[in-house]
Amino acid sequence: MGCAPSFGIQILIEEELALAGIEWLIEAFGCPEGALRTLETLDNLFRTIVSEMKLKPVGNSVWHRFPDTGGMTGFWLLQESHLAIHTFPEFQSACLNVFCCTERPPIDWESKMAGLLGATEIRVREYLRIYKK
Amino acid sequence: MGCAPSFGIQILIEEELALAGIEWLIEAFGCPEGALRTLETLDNLFRTIVSEMKLKPVGNSVWHRFPDTGGMTGFWLLQESHLAIHTFPEFQSACLNVFCCTERPPIDWESKMAGLLGATEIRVREYLRIYKK
Repeated sequence: MGCAPSFGIQILIEEELALAGIEWLIEAFGCPEGALRTLETLDNLFRTIVSEMKLKPVGNSVWHRFPDTGGMTGFWLLQESHLAIHTFPEFQSACLNVFCCTERPPIDWESKMAGLLGATEIRVREYLRIYKK
Repeated sequence: MGCAPSFGIQILIEEELALAGIEWLIEAFGCPEGALRTLETLDNLFRTIVSEMKLKPVGNSVWHRFPDTGGMTGFWLLQESHLAIHTFPEFQSACLNVFCCTERPPIDWESKMAGLLGATEIRVREYLRIYKK
């Protein structure tokens, strides 16, 4: 990857300096089905995350629509790792991954997922991804 | 997404039947730098995971090489969600995501990452991704 180590999160593990990224696993519930089937809506979510977290995309986002449910999968490669989303309109839900290999504060996931996807409930988990032990 | 609910993992939560996928977050350490810079090696890892877990790709995997370190990012969209990998040759490490929205036993991550990437140590975490509460 192209992450400059000086920007990574530095964690003292057993007296050695480790470097880690952060991955957010986010589930959104209660979203209107239409939003979860609409490329423009999902692309706008990606662009908002990229803009607010000051991420640097590599190329364009890639999208696929599943014909049976209209659910969408999207992926965007970043200098800092990636965004991925899977939507389940049949269950009014979506699963989002945001992986940053450099330190970055989270954005307000709840208001973004509510405002952009219409989510009424979200679950956010944040994990360290250590790449230098 | 195109996941048939009947194949999802069913979890009884507060007396309601939930549906969930599984995401594995895997870190591999001690890998030879050359392996982490070689598209064929990484593509072979993806193909082995797809084959052994009986996953169904949608299109081809997508790869990007970071010019400064030679690190690679790869992504493969699946009917069952996605694979993603980021390699850090400068630290002899890689971060892998395997997201399956349908039930599937894990493969032997340790032997695969050792055999295919030359990893001497791995860390595997497994998380439920609930998409129907």
